[in-house]
Amino acid sequence: MEEKEELSLEELGEEIVEAVKTRNAAKIKDIFETIPNIDIAEAIEDVDDVNVYIYIFRVVKSEYTAEFFAELDPEIQEKIINALTDKELVELTKNSFADDITDTLEEMPANVVSRVLKACPKDIRQDVNYLLNFKDNTAGSVMTTEYLEMKDTTTIKDAIKIIRDKGRDAETIYTIFVRDSTRTLVGTVDLDELIFADEDAKLEEIMNRDFVTCNADDDQEEVANMFKRYDLNAMAVVNKENKIIGIITIDDVVDIIVEEATEDIAHLAAVSTMDEPYLKTPTLKLVLKCVPWIIVLMILQVFSAMILSSFETAISQFAILAVFTPLIMDAGGNSGGQTTTMIVRSLSLEEFEGKDYGKVVWKELRVASVIGLIVSSFAFGWLMFEMSVGIINTDSINDIGGNFYGNVALVSLLVASTLFVTMLISRLVGCSLPFLAKLIKLDPAVVCGPITTTMVDIISLITYFLLWTQVLAPIIFK
Amino acid sequence: MEEKEELSLEELGEEIVEAVKTRNAAKIKDIFETIPNIDIAEAIEDVDDVNVYIYIFRVVKSEYTAEFFAELDPEIQEKIINALTDKELVELTKNSFADDITDTLEEMPANVVSRVLKACPKDIRQDVNYLLNFKDNTAGSVMTTEYLEMKDTTTIKDAIKIIRDKGRDAETIYTIFVRDSTRTLVGTVDLDELIFADEDAKLEEIMNRDFVTCNADDDQEEVANMFKRYDLNAMAVVNKENKIIGIITIDDVVDIIVEEATEDIAHLAAVSTMDEPYLKTPTLKLVLKCVPWIIVLMILQVFSAMILSSFETAISQFAILAVFTPLIMDAGGNSGGQTTTMIVRSLSLEEFEGKDYGKVVWKELRVASVIGLIVSSFAFGWLMFEMSVGIINTDSINDIGGNFYGNVALVSLLVASTLFVTMLISRLVGCSLPFLAKLIKLDPAVVCGPITTTMVDIISLITYFLLWTQVLAPIIFK
Repeated sequence: MEEKEELSLEELGEEIVEAVKTRNAAKIKDIFETIPNIDIAEAIEDVDDVNVYIYIFRVVKSEYTAEFFAELDPEIQEKIINALTDKELVELTKNSFADDITDTLEEMPANVVSRVLKACPKDIRQDVNYLLNFKDNTAGSVMTTEYLEMKDTTTIKDAIKIIRDKGRDAETIYTIFVRDSTRTLVGTVDLDELIFADEDAKLEEIMNRDFVTCNADDDQEEVANMFKRYDLNAMAVVNKENKIIGIITIDDVVDIIVEEATEDIAHLAAVSTMDEPYLKTPTLKLVLKCVPWIIVLMILQVFSAMILSSFETAISQFAILAVFTPLIMDAGGNSGGQTTTMIVRSLSLEEFEGKDYGKVVWKELRVASVIGLIVSSFAFGWLMFEMSVGIINTDSINDIGGNFYGNVALVSLLVASTLFVTMLISRLVGCSLPFLAKLIKLDPAVVCGPITTTMVDIISLITYFLLWTQVLAPIIFK
Repeated sequence: MEEKEELSLEELGEEIVEAVKTRNAAKIKDIFETIPNIDIAEAIEDVDDVNVYIYIFRVVKSEYTAEFFAELDPEIQEKIINALTDKELVELTKNSFADDITDTLEEMPANVVSRVLKACPKDIRQDVNYLLNFKDNTAGSVMTTEYLEMKDTTTIKDAIKIIRDKGRDAETIYTIFVRDSTRTLVGTVDLDELIFADEDAKLEEIMNRDFVTCNADDDQEEVANMFKRYDLNAMAVVNKENKIIGIITIDDVVDIIVEEATEDIAHLAAVSTMDEPYLKTPTLKLVLKCVPWIIVLMILQVFSAMILSSFETAISQFAILAVFTPLIMDAGGNSGGQTTTMIVRSLSLEEFEGKDYGKVVWKELRVASVIGLIVSSFAFGWLMFEMSVGIINTDSINDIGGNFYGNVALVSLLVASTLFVTMLISRLVGCSLPFLAKLIKLDPAVVCGPITTTMVDIISLITYFLLWTQVLAPIIFK
């Protein structure tokens, strides 16, 4: 399926450019009527010549081009705005939704913004100015101001008439918001309920009273979770007096969910937020998204380097100690990463919250003990095997003399015991830091990985070398 | 907002149990009319007494309880099915959607399945039997068979009449699917277009011809990406003859998107797929999701242990070498992880596909070179600083005599050069493996992390020790 689609996108691009060249208006019109706008936008995304777009805008009906425009890359949008006449710009904005215009303008220089705003019809201009004020990632920044609101005493018959008259300007007509005489939101009516209802009934008789709302400064991720939880099509954004100020629709929520998941995934891998597709991100921007964390982690590594270097004498005497430090540090890092990831994702999906910390720690204590036992038992056997069959060079064990297998067992025991401690600490730290981060309002996905790894490295290495110098070395070298 | 909700959920649970105890049917009815089903289901999720549920099912109208039932945990669902009379079961299934019944039955023992199927109305039973045959994670497994399909010659007036008559049994009435006389799907009509259209027009005059469809065995993730791309409310699932066999609606897609993102996140952190919320997953199941990967990674570590141990003599002579191996291995692991994560996510979102591999490698070559230069320059300076001021114990450098700062510089240069190679290799391997995994139909998120780390560890360690033994040691010890 993909293959076919992708092929036809390239062909489609060539067809469009060809049709523009030959001034084949009928062909262009036909393409816009039979192919989704996003496919057309993508098919010609490599076309830089603004005249191609201008020709399209002049021959295709503006009800198609407004949506098509919204799908284009910001650079092309800017070029088009500059190339359109004032009259054409008025036509374009008239057929656009206020939230789409707002999204476009957020990326434009001031002179373009003011030209577009001038071209907007007055009501849209007011809405755009209003929407431009909300902070990124809040409900306010994704809401739209074009919705249908009716009084609770409206009859079904009148409601349908209002929909027919004004519905075209609304972002959705599938959910109608019902207010009482004080303009307070008191219910919602889904279009299907309206279709099935008795013509003379009033909205208040059929409306859902169990609707949910959000505030303009709520985090968009919380809003998305509510859509998922309640299977909503649209949700009202209300002010403190429970009066509706905008709505959020499911198509915006789908984008939010994908965006927030991508953000969590990037942050958990120590990459800064990706706000554009990989191939469209410039090389230097990619570098800047990755390098800071590599360097931060390198700086944090100083603690393990300090510990390792302070045991240099032990390492010189018995170099096999150095062979197993990466194994211990990696196991700790992986295990802490597993825990942090699960907790961060659960917090994102609101499966639990701050007050559940006790339950989580209690669960992790049990999980970590079992994992610690399994991993350290396995490691003991595996290292015994590795060293006995000679996969690993055991010169340093041979050099100290004594019972070879006894010493191999002691070294394996050293690593195994350290791993047990490492598993416990990594899971407890790994599950606690996300809660702590949330408490002090930091993004758990960003801060937890590096700090967990560093703390676990420090504790594991100290355990390892102290166990060696204080307990096992005296036995082996006695 | 959360705080309030959470509190009231607990109180709500107590209220419901109290109302059931006092046989307060009015109260129960009122709760079901004013509070979303999912909140009620969650409020009493800890209530194990099946009699509470049975009382609810007997007093509340079945149009509410069918949806409420779908939100309950499988164990409680099973208890309820066993406790309901045949007549009550018929009532429950009559008001349920075929896809919800299918989801429930997938988790039930055979005797429960057969009892429920017997209770279903004939048409629903056929649909459920049909739906039970599709493989998990395919479009067929999430589709529903209750939709509105009309002929292209139907008038708007008749269409609205059909919706009023049959719409209640459909999963959505917001999208109507239009077929021609050969039963081939030829278009879709959104309910809002119907509302605005002329009563006597025919569906074929107003239908969208630029609709998209999928097949029953398409991956659900691909379907979700199409919903996102085309801002759909519903999509038809068609067979090879382009005849509609089911539909998928946006509320199912929201769940798919969240599920697929959670799966990617878990796999990237080397955790097996989480199919239930963290706190509801039993301890042993959590252990089983984490332990295998820790052990696999430990086994893969044997390669770096072999390399390290084969250079034990070098380490014994100059222990500071062992101090920097974790730094190099961690930097490689982190850098590879960053790349793999970005590529895996982009592949999931279908930002690019197999044939874009060349573009990606070329981009990574540039990104990796710049990152390599920055990271190795920084590391050189940082290690010079660490060793010069004595944060790190430099006894082994002092021991070999000669020019201390010259030797510190040489060691820093050794680590810095290795890091340059590490950055290049980690990003090239990290970006290539996901493509390779996709090519041989493995889940990139699962297999790439461990293999990248292992390969990068091997190459980095060999580079590090060969540079030392072949190039720098001869200079220092000359």
